Amino acid sequence: MSNTSGQVIKCKAAVAWEAAKPLVIEQVEVAPPKAGEVRLKILYTSLCHTDVYFWEAKGQTPLFPRIFGHEAGGIVESVGEGVTHLKPGDHALPVFTGECGECPHCKSEESNMCDLLRINTDRGVMLHDQESRFSINGKPIYHFVGTSTFSEYTVVHAGCVAKINPEAPLDKVCVLSCGICTGLGATVNVAKPKPGSSVAVFGLGAVGLAAAEGARISGASRIIGVDLVSSRFELAKKFGVNEFVNPKDHNKPVQEVIADMTNGGVDRAVECTGSIQAMISAFECVHDGWGVAVLVGVPSKDDAFKTHPMNFLNERTLKGTFYGNYKPRTDLPNVVEKYMKGELELEKFITHTVPFSEINKAFDLMLKGESIRCIIRMEE
Amino acid sequence: MSNTSGQVIKCKAAVAWEAAKPLVIEQVEVAPPKAGEVRLKILYTSLCHTDVYFWEAKGQTPLFPRIFGHEAGGIVESVGEGVTHLKPGDHALPVFTGECGECPHCKSEESNMCDLLRINTDRGVMLHDQESRFSINGKPIYHFVGTSTFSEYTVVHAGCVAKINPEAPLDKVCVLSCGICTGLGATVNVAKPKPGSSVAVFGLGAVGLAAAEGARISGASRIIGVDLVSSRFELAKKFGVNEFVNPKDHNKPVQEVIADMTNGGVDRAVECTGSIQAMISAFECVHDGWGVAVLVGVPSKDDAFKTHPMNFLNERTLKGTFYGNYKPRTDLPNVVEKYMKGELELEKFITHTVPFSEINKAFDLMLKGESIRCIIRMEE
Ligand SMILES: NC(=O)c1ccc[n+]([C@@H]2O[C@H](COP(=O)([O-])OP(=O)(O)OC[C@H]3O[C@@H](n4cnc5c(N)ncnc54)[C@H](O)[C@@H]3O)[C@@H](O)[C@H]2O)c1
Ligand SMILES: NC(=O)c1ccc[n+]([C@@H]2O[C@H](COP(=O)([O-])OP(=O)(O)OC[C@H]3O[C@@H](n4cnc5c(N)ncnc54)[C@H](O)[C@@H]3O)[C@@H](O)[C@H]2O)c1
Ligand SMILES: [Zn+2]
Ligand SMILES: [Zn+2]
Ligand SMILES: [Zn+2]
Ligand SMILES: [Zn+2]
Repeated sequence: MSNTSGQVIKCKAAVAWEAAKPLVIEQVEVAPPKAGEVRLKILYTSLCHTDVYFWEAKGQTPLFPRIFGHEAGGIVESVGEGVTHLKPGDHALPVFTGECGECPHCKSEESNMCDLLRINTDRGVMLHDQESRFSINGKPIYHFVGTSTFSEYTVVHAGCVAKINPEAPLDKVCVLSCGICTGLGATVNVAKPKPGSSVAVFGLGAVGLAAAEGARISGASRIIGVDLVSSRFELAKKFGVNEFVNPKDHNKPVQEVIADMTNGGVDRAVECTGSIQAMISAFECVHDGWGVAVLVGVPSKDDAFKTHPMNFLNERTLKGTFYGNYKPRTDLPNVVEKYMKGELELEKFITHTVPFSEINKAFDLMLKGESIRCIIRMEE
Repeated sequence: MSNTSGQVIKCKAAVAWEAAKPLVIEQVEVAPPKAGEVRLKILYTSLCHTDVYFWEAKGQTPLFPRIFGHEAGGIVESVGEGVTHLKPGDHALPVFTGECGECPHCKSEESNMCDLLRINTDRGVMLHDQESRFSINGKPIYHFVGTSTFSEYTVVHAGCVAKINPEAPLDKVCVLSCGICTGLGATVNVAKPKPGSSVAVFGLGAVGLAAAEGARISGASRIIGVDLVSSRFELAKKFGVNEFVNPKDHNKPVQEVIADMTNGGVDRAVECTGSIQAMISAFECVHDGWGVAVLVGVPSKDDAFKTHPMNFLNERTLKGTFYGNYKPRTDLPNVVEKYMKGELELEKFITHTVPFSEINKAFDLMLKGESIRCIIRMEE
C-alpha cells in the first residue's frame, strides 16, 4: 500500500471554472476512494472533442466548476473496499463507460452498454454517494463522465478502470480510452470488413482515422475517405485511406458517387462525423445483398434518420456503436496487446505533446483543427 | 426422356385475361424449354398475396393476359440445352427468384439477390429471348415472376428451380416457394434469436406466422404477436405465439407497450406487414445493446423509414431480407429436409385445398382473409 492510502491527497488539477474560459491549474484535494472505487495517479492524458463540447457547454447543461478529461493512462494509487481486480501499482486506463459485470448488458456477449456505468454526461458526482471526491477549500469541484483525468490524481469507479500490461507506454496507450477505440472498434468489432473488401469512412477526424486504421488492420483493399475538408486526405493516407471523395466536388449525392466508383456500393461504411446527412449517405452507399453501415457520430437532438425502407429490404444492414462495442475491462487489455505486437499503430494519432501547465494549448490546437491527439504530460 | 420432350405441350392453364376478373381455365400451348430452361409438370400450387396484388393491378403496371402463380411443386418434364443440375423426373420447387451461380451475389455467402435472376414483376417473358413460352392460337400469354405455376406445365429458368427430395410430399412443400420461407428465413437466417430469447412478430399473415414458426424452432421462449386484428391471436398460438398485442388497444405507441412488457425491449423483432408504421415500431421495440429488427413487408413507393439516429447508436441493428435470405437452389433442399425430419411444421399453414377447376375460390378465400394457404390440386 502506498503511504497516501486512506488520506486526502493534495495535488494539481486543471479546473474549468466557467464555460469556454481557459482552465486554471489549481491545488485540489482528492478524497480517498470509497467502496468500489479506485484512486489513480494520472501520468498522461489526452484531449478529445467531447471535453471541448462540454467545456464550451453550448448545447449541454452547464455544470461548473468541473475537472474535464477522459482519455488517460495512470497507475493505481489505492483502492476502496471490495475492489479485487485492481491493486496499488497496477497500470490502468480509466474509461468514460464501465463494466459492472452484473447487468444484462455486461452478461451479454453483444453489448457494452452497462446499465450501471453507462456514460452519463450530466452527473458530476460519484455514483456511490452522489458526492464529489474533488474539493478546493471544502467546496466541491464536479467530476466529468466519471473520469476527470485533468488532475494528477482522480477517483474513478473500479468498473471503469481497465488493468493493462505494465510494459505498455502510457504516453501512447492513453489514447485508447475514448476516440481511437471508438473508431477502431466500429470497424473491427461491428462493421467487420473482410480482407480484400472496400470500406468507406465518413469523417476523417480522430475517430474516422481510427476507423480507417481498423479497415487497414482488417486487410480491406479499398479504403475510401469522405470528408468536406480535402486537406484531410493527405494525412489520412498514413491510416490506410487510399481514395478520397469530397461531397462538395460533386453534383450528385455522395452515395451515388461511391456506388459508381465501386460497382454498386462499398462492402462496409463507417460514419464518424455526427452529421445526419453523412449518416444517411453512409447507409445508402453500401452494396445491396451484403453491405453493412455503422454509425458512430453523435447526432443532434432533433435529427431524424430517413431512408426508403427498400434500402433495407435489399439486404443492407445498419448498426450503431458506442465505444466501438469494446467492454472496457474485458477488451482494453487485448487492444493494448495488439499495439504491443505492432499490429495497431498509435504513434501516428499523436500529433502534439504539451506539459500539464500548458493544457490550454491542447484546447487551442483542437479548436483550430491542427491536432489529432495532443498528449498532456502530467509530470513536467 | 419423356416423350413430350422437345414438343409443344397442350395443357390447361388458368389465364388472367383482365385485372381483377376471374381466371379462366384455357387450353394453352407450352413451348419446349430453351437453353438454360426447364419445363415442369406442376402437381400442386398455392396462392400468395403477391399473385392477388398483381392480378388486381391496382398499383402495378398491368400486364395481361397473364398466367399467375409462384408457389408450387412439380416434376421436371424436360430440360433445355446446358442444364446439368436437373433431369426429367426430378422433384422440384420453382422460385420467383433464382441463383445463377456466377454473379457477385451468388458468390457471396451473405446475399441471395442474384443479379441475373432477381425477381422482376414487370417482365412477362423469358430472359433467354424475351419471348413467352405460353400461347393460345399463336397469341402469347405473359409469364409472371418467371414461374407461372397456374398451369399444368410451365417453363422456368433452371436457376430458379430447386431440386428436392423425391420423397417429400409436393402438396405440402409447395408452400416453401415463397411466403413461408420468407418469414421462416427472416427469423432463422437473419434475426437469429437465441434459445430462451424474446421475439416480436409484427403481422400475423402467412409470412408473420412463418416468422413465428422460425422463432419457435429457434427455441425463443416469448413470442409476441402484434396485429391490428385481434382474432389472429387464436390461430397464431399454433405457431408458437404466446403473447399478443393489438396496437389499437393502447394509448401509447406499440414499441413502448412492448418495451414495458419486456424490461426494455425484445431481443428480436420481425416485421411482416408492409406497413411503414409497423416497420418503425418493430425497430424501436428491440432492446438496446443487442436488439435486432428485420424488415420483410413490402412498403409503398412513397414510404420513408424515419427514426432518431440515437436508436442506432444505442447498439440496435436493422436489417431487411428478401425471401428470408434463402438461396433457392442451395438452401431449399435443406428446408425440405427440416420438414421431413419433423422440425418444421407445414400442415398448419394449409387451411384449404381446391381442385384446379375451382382456382377462383382460392382467390375468394384469400380476399376474405379466411385462408392462410389454399393448395390448388392440378389433377382432379
Ligand atoms: N459513439 C461513440 O462512442 C463516440 C465516441 C467518441 C466520439 N464520437 C463521435 O464521433 C464523431 C467524430 O469524432 P471526431 O473527434 O473524429 O470529430 P472531428 O470533428 O475531429 O471529425 C469529424 C470530421 O467529419 C467531417 N465531416 C463533417 N460533416 C461531414 C459530412 N457531411 N460528410 C463528410 N465529412 C463530414 C469533418 O470535416 C471532420 O473532418 C463525433 O460526432 C463524436 O461525437 C462517438
Ligand atoms: N421480402 C420478401 O421477400 C417477401 C415475400 C413475400 C411477402 N412479403 C411481404 O410480407 C408482408 C406480409 O405478407 P402476408 O402474405 O403475410 O400478408 P397478410 O396481409 O396476410 O398479413 C399482414 C398482416 O399484417 C397486419 N398488419 C397490417 N398493418 C399492421 C400494423 N401497422 N401493425 C400490426 N399488424 C399489421 C394485418 O392485419 C395482417 O394480419 C407483405 O408486405 C408482403 O408483400 C415479402
Ligand atoms: Zn453492467
Ligand atoms: Zn472522447
Ligand atoms: Zn447470380
Ligand atoms: Zn409470394
